[in-house]
Amino acid sequence: MQSVKPVLHTYFRSSCTWRVRIALALKGIEYDQVPVNLIKDGGQQLFSDFSEVNPMQQVPSLQIDGISLSQSLAIIQYLDETRPKPKLLPEDAKKRAYVRMISDLIASGIQPLQNLMVLQKLGEGERLGWAQSCITKGFHALEKILQRTSGLYCVEDEVSMADLCLVPQVYNAVRFKVDLTPFPTIARINQALMELEAFNVSHPSRQPDTPPDLRA
Amino acid sequence: MQSVKPVLHTYFRSSCTWRVRIALALKGIEYDQVPVNLIKDGGQQLFSDFSEVNPMQQVPSLQIDGISLSQSLAIIQYLDETRPKPKLLPEDAKKRAYVRMISDLIASGIQPLQNLMVLQKLGEGERLGWAQSCITKGFHALEKILQRTSGLYCVEDEVSMADLCLVPQVYNAVRFKVDLTPFPTIARINQALMELEAFNVSHPSRQPDTPPDLRA
Repeated sequence: MQSVKPVLHTYFRSSCTWRVRIALALKGIEYDQVPVNLIKDGGQQLFSDFSEVNPMQQVPSLQIDGISLSQSLAIIQYLDETRPKPKLLPEDAKKRAYVRMISDLIASGIQPLQNLMVLQKLGEGERLGWAQSCITKGFHALEKILQRTSGLYCVEDEVSMADLCLVPQVYNAVRFKVDLTPFPTIARINQALMELEAFNVSHPSRQPDTPPDLRA
Repeated sequence: MQSVKPVLHTYFRSSCTWRVRIALALKGIEYDQVPVNLIKDGGQQLFSDFSEVNPMQQVPSLQIDGISLSQSLAIIQYLDETRPKPKLLPEDAKKRAYVRMISDLIASGIQPLQNLMVLQKLGEGERLGWAQSCITKGFHALEKILQRTSGLYCVEDEVSMADLCLVPQVYNAVRFKVDLTPFPTIARINQALMELEAFNVSHPSRQPDTPPDLRA
């Protein structure tokens, strides 16, 4: 089955999908994209054909090796275990735990709280403040943790799954106009990562489904 | 360092902590508990000494082997990699991906949305309905996925990390009075798991910090 190109259901601005696009780029895996516009037509993720692909009605979803996977960290770890070069989780168990801790802090502790579903529930006037407070609270914790674990990147000097979570979350923070001044370690690592090609080609401003006015 | 007993910062009713308590029980790991009451004193997780343990100000946190870990799935996978019996992630990469997908669907896709911080943000009259709708939406997806992956338990016939996420989430669903009738697979697996000792001894009604009126 590995000769069939993987298919990624994607939305240019989805931070969870961006995580997976970085992994695919770092590992040099060719894939086809099927865009799922989360805004248009009342949300194409709610269409019944996509619900068959991912019952959770969220991107990303990756069809690969004859199976259909959703949840970005599950996808990234499957890619890492089946296409191990370059490794996105360190060999050492403690460092791997730090990578997962940082990844989950973002993927469970920050991103879901500033996601579309929660923002739609809140009133128009409350959305920005809520998103800012969730991200700021999470970043205060993340900054402290990264001061202990980081080298060039989130966990020492190798790019890991934690970095794949960090950059899209910083992108969201900027979108929501979060003041990054209190987070020098986060800002430094983000800047170092954005110099890498895989983080650039996968950027929301450079996807096939990026609207023309948002292209870089 | 492995001769020092691990220390779990815990709250009896925290579903994320219950996941870790099940892992510790299944693996027969002895540990000490430090209760952190999320309600009392305005939330003891906000105290500065606990913020040093976990800057995210959430339980669980596990001090083990000379390091301090937070995020339940990172903790469980660290335990599984350093104390592999019984294994909580299958050997096969695709099955492992299913285990992580189901775990993340609950840990990132459901639990954070019905967590304390979001509920406190919503008005008194909106909380129950919101929690119910988040859990119900997630359970519809989970039910479909489990129909494909489950045997006796979430992924075939071995207890895995996915099961450690399922049972506490069903407990939350019951607390929030979610109708489980549309989810026969979830209900069946939950019932099978609750027959296992590790899921019982770790139950919120049987912890050292369980208030007397909530004890089973």
